[in-house]
Amino acid sequence: MIVCKFGGTSVASAEQIKKVANIVKSNPERKIIVVSAPGKRYGDDIKVTDLLIDLANAALKNGDVEGKLQNVVNRYKTIADDLGLDQSISNIITQDLRERVDSDKSNVDLFVDSLKASGEDNNAKLIAAYFNSIGLSAKYVSPQEGLVVNNPPERTVALPEAFENLNKMKNNEEIIVFPGFFGYTKEGTLRTFDRGGSDITGSILAAAVKADLYENFTDVDCVFTANPKVVKDPVGIEEITYREMRELSYSGFSVFHDEALMPVFKLGIPVNIKNTNNPSAPGTKILPARTTSSSRPVTGISADSGFSTLYVSKYLMNREIGFGRKLLHIIEDEHISYDHTPSGVDDISVIIRSNQITPEAEERIVKRIKEELHADDVYFRHGFSMIVIVGEGMRNNTGLAARAASAISKTGSNIEMINQGSSEVSLVFGVLSDVENEVLTALYGEFFTPITVY
Amino acid sequence: MIVCKFGGTSVASAEQIKKVANIVKSNPERKIIVVSAPGKRYGDDIKVTDLLIDLANAALKNGDVEGKLQNVVNRYKTIADDLGLDQSISNIITQDLRERVDSDKSNVDLFVDSLKASGEDNNAKLIAAYFNSIGLSAKYVSPQEGLVVNNPPERTVALPEAFENLNKMKNNEEIIVFPGFFGYTKEGTLRTFDRGGSDITGSILAAAVKADLYENFTDVDCVFTANPKVVKDPVGIEEITYREMRELSYSGFSVFHDEALMPVFKLGIPVNIKNTNNPSAPGTKILPARTTSSSRPVTGISADSGFSTLYVSKYLMNREIGFGRKLLHIIEDEHISYDHTPSGVDDISVIIRSNQITPEAEERIVKRIKEELHADDVYFRHGFSMIVIVGEGMRNNTGLAARAASAISKTGSNIEMINQGSSEVSLVFGVLSDVENEVLTALYGEFFTPITVY
Repeated sequence: MIVCKFGGTSVASAEQIKKVANIVKSNPERKIIVVSAPGKRYGDDIKVTDLLIDLANAALKNGDVEGKLQNVVNRYKTIADDLGLDQSISNIITQDLRERVDSDKSNVDLFVDSLKASGEDNNAKLIAAYFNSIGLSAKYVSPQEGLVVNNPPERTVALPEAFENLNKMKNNEEIIVFPGFFGYTKEGTLRTFDRGGSDITGSILAAAVKADLYENFTDVDCVFTANPKVVKDPVGIEEITYREMRELSYSGFSVFHDEALMPVFKLGIPVNIKNTNNPSAPGTKILPARTTSSSRPVTGISADSGFSTLYVSKYLMNREIGFGRKLLHIIEDEHISYDHTPSGVDDISVIIRSNQITPEAEERIVKRIKEELHADDVYFRHGFSMIVIVGEGMRNNTGLAARAASAISKTGSNIEMINQGSSEVSLVFGVLSDVENEVLTALYGEFFTPITVY
Repeated sequence: MIVCKFGGTSVASAEQIKKVANIVKSNPERKIIVVSAPGKRYGDDIKVTDLLIDLANAALKNGDVEGKLQNVVNRYKTIADDLGLDQSISNIITQDLRERVDSDKSNVDLFVDSLKASGEDNNAKLIAAYFNSIGLSAKYVSPQEGLVVNNPPERTVALPEAFENLNKMKNNEEIIVFPGFFGYTKEGTLRTFDRGGSDITGSILAAAVKADLYENFTDVDCVFTANPKVVKDPVGIEEITYREMRELSYSGFSVFHDEALMPVFKLGIPVNIKNTNNPSAPGTKILPARTTSSSRPVTGISADSGFSTLYVSKYLMNREIGFGRKLLHIIEDEHISYDHTPSGVDDISVIIRSNQITPEAEERIVKRIKEELHADDVYFRHGFSMIVIVGEGMRNNTGLAARAASAISKTGSNIEMINQGSSEVSLVFGVLSDVENEVLTALYGEFFTPITVY
């Protein structure tokens, strides 16, 4: 059995939804379909989710609710008309939206959540209706039928019983069309996933039914070995391991949110990222382990800016048991997470995402480290980028660090940080952000340019 | 004013002590002389300190005290005779030893300390007597005159008032001969420095009198850029900064104990390591900052074996604020210090000196990390060496990491860990210990072999 998830652009219009139907029809294993809300049809189109946020705000401020509501309904109506569906689906959606708009507004977050989630929910109803209209036996299933999530204020996660509840879906005759992005608490309150969105719903369903495959349909043929906005025509990735994917997601390689793959990862279910607009392309497979051997040691290179370093030095630091732990505690007290902690004998740097630090927090941290840890020197530096070279083939690949460092040095850029040695499948270089693209391009050239034989 | 410290081999015999006198005479700035106990005169000679430990053990077990005592006295007597001194110094030493042997044995450690320290103490008396006999006006000064140390059970350190007390020595007309290695508590109990020995006494005195220079006389011409037991005829170091010295001392570059330089470091007093047997050689200067520019970016390369790594992985580790801190806390609970913590997205390795870990501690640590931190994978690996390339000139030296990694890769050795980015003056490579010497030799070749121009 295959669980398929179709992203916003894959379900943005009648034309796209027809492609989805063809994809589902072409393989009878595709029994559970998770759908997003209609996304953008063209560059400056407005996503249904954004129209819904508009509507929610209007309802909260007693603004032009009717106009905003019609904007949403019209998007669905256009799709339904183009798919040859009758008026009934639009009526269902209109009534649904009115009920949500009129619902309890005492908790603003939950009210907005409910309206946002209607984007996926109503699209699932519409797509199920369309499938049935073309003879593809389908059934809309609400997350109310088992996708149990925790209560606020913790951020939304599926409870363990959700997996048990949803397991029964594997026995369904019809194709199930399931809206992504939200679940319900035991008390019946709708809550959206703030991280991972519809991807996480697909991942939960795939894990619940112990699917053979989780197909994630989007609008690109594959995941690229490097950011195509920086590197010209990068090679596509055919196979990538969970581990490689995790290492790459660390900086700027945003295919999935970190947490989206967790449920399938735990069961070792393979994931296939595919293109709705080119379904015959093999796409990128994310697997527990590689099935084919690659001639390249490196699978991908990602880069991300927005890093700061906190530098701390103290004579005889290395003799002081507990210094590092106390330092990390001070950072933790500011609710800041860190990425790396390269260290010398008497100094340590903590690499932090800059967006977590305010000038006030910076001042407090520096003051506490000086006062509580009696450090000799403490300061922040900003404007760093991290570039990560990832590949299972890097394990025991003699000379790889040399190739990478040489490629960087040929650009004339200074390496501010190197971190290698824990995962054995990644090598991290810190550089100043103004040379990030140059360094990424040089590393891509080193590891991915085909060797021309004369 | 110069404070000079002479190590064990520099004061092991009459011949050596005559060299010391000549060195002291040749520069009137050399006003304070710190001496060790007589060391080895030849390869399998026994140091006076070891004879004293023998004596202490005999006294504690009611063994052959008289014979052991005579062994010690005879070493001094030989030196005194060869220096043309009369019987009186031997009598003083004999009486001193008898008093120590007969002293309170209720605290075994303090009793042994007292006997051990007599090695330096009596040698200082002997050398002061010799200086006076050749017309070099000198005075033995006991650490009782101001070198106040803390009380047990904390390990011995000089108290802040020691520096004030000892400052008055700078006004002395005569040359002061001061025994290294010990001080006295406020209550008058003798305690030895367990770390740094006579080097630390010299460093304390130099700081106390705010000396212009701290000369540390030993039996080598200089500090070498790499271990001469591994690298053939390594280049000597003329100037090294405190920082570089600290980074090199991290692994296997044992010129000074870590803590020995602390007092002079705090005041920025330069240190000169010189050879008693070749005092005209410039030796190695340890300075707050470099005074001459070196054409080489690297100052030295040290290597040390005996490292283990603790590997911990957990899916989404990087999202978990506090994970690293909790991990370090578990290690700290076992009183283990760590050197580096290279990290990937979902994993972290902790580099630890293996001699700190017992199989039991290892088991406890792995168990706690699995149970308390819910890690996916936790294990120790052993048999690593750390190789550290150090140089102030490495800051912003583009391509240095590439040169180093390339040199290592040419040996066919795998790099298990790279750490760069905190101090900016060091680059650490972790390799398997069986390739340590090969890698050190290759790195030395890369950074120190003179470039031959054809």
